[in-house]
Amino acid sequence: MENVNVVLELWNAFGRLDFEAAAALLADDFVCEWPQSGEIIRGRANFIAINANYPGEWRIRVVRVVDGGDEVVTEAEATWGDQQASAISFFRLRNGQITHLREFWPEPYPPQEWRSAWVEKA
Amino acid sequence: MENVNVVLELWNAFGRLDFEAAAALLADDFVCEWPQSGEIIRGRANFIAINANYPGEWRIRVVRVVDGGDEVVTEAEATWGDQQASAISFFRLRNGQITHLREFWPEPYPPQEWRSAWVEKA
Repeated sequence: MENVNVVLELWNAFGRLDFEAAAALLADDFVCEWPQSGEIIRGRANFIAINANYPGEWRIRVVRVVDGGDEVVTEAEATWGDQQASAISFFRLRNGQITHLREFWPEPYPPQEWRSAWVEKA
Repeated sequence: MENVNVVLELWNAFGRLDFEAAAALLADDFVCEWPQSGEIIRGRANFIAINANYPGEWRIRVVRVVDGGDEVVTEAEATWGDQQASAISFFRLRNGQITHLREFWPEPYPPQEWRSAWVEKA
């Protein structure tokens, strides 16, 4: 399976809440970094435990994929109830498994008045 | 110049506050999206005006690049005074110029207690 498909299949498995399928795509020594909080998750088992214990039931939609060979980046939307969050995920792969993930969860912020002359609203 | 080098040169030019050099790397019809605020900047001139008028003097360091051919993703750190912010930037290129940028500015958030059993601190 191509690296980009391994990554899409991981999101797919998380979206189905199928943690066994997700685990098979991660290397034993998988590491996840969440730089915004300084949290580091070492080992596939810990990462799967966190995802399986995440409060609430969420669904995933991948909206963007950049295929950099051994590195793949996705933008994904997670939805639970009436809430939504975006994840930007930098994956690194080796031998068809994901070895490393560096992930950001950007939050909404207000448009800034000082630059409004040059900006349109989405 | 390879696409990945065009992107690195754009960051370099912004880091030197050299807006003329930056402008040459952007297509006339360049568009930037900041999804967190719903701001859209259409046209090279508007994007350069915003960067040239940004409050404060900042410096840029690129900490990660993923080369996806016509798409390049960077993680960069902007520093001004004692403040720092991270930018995750999805660039799209055509004929050696940047045509599109979709950029996120993730903010720090606190580690979450419910998952602390599976997490290390950076």
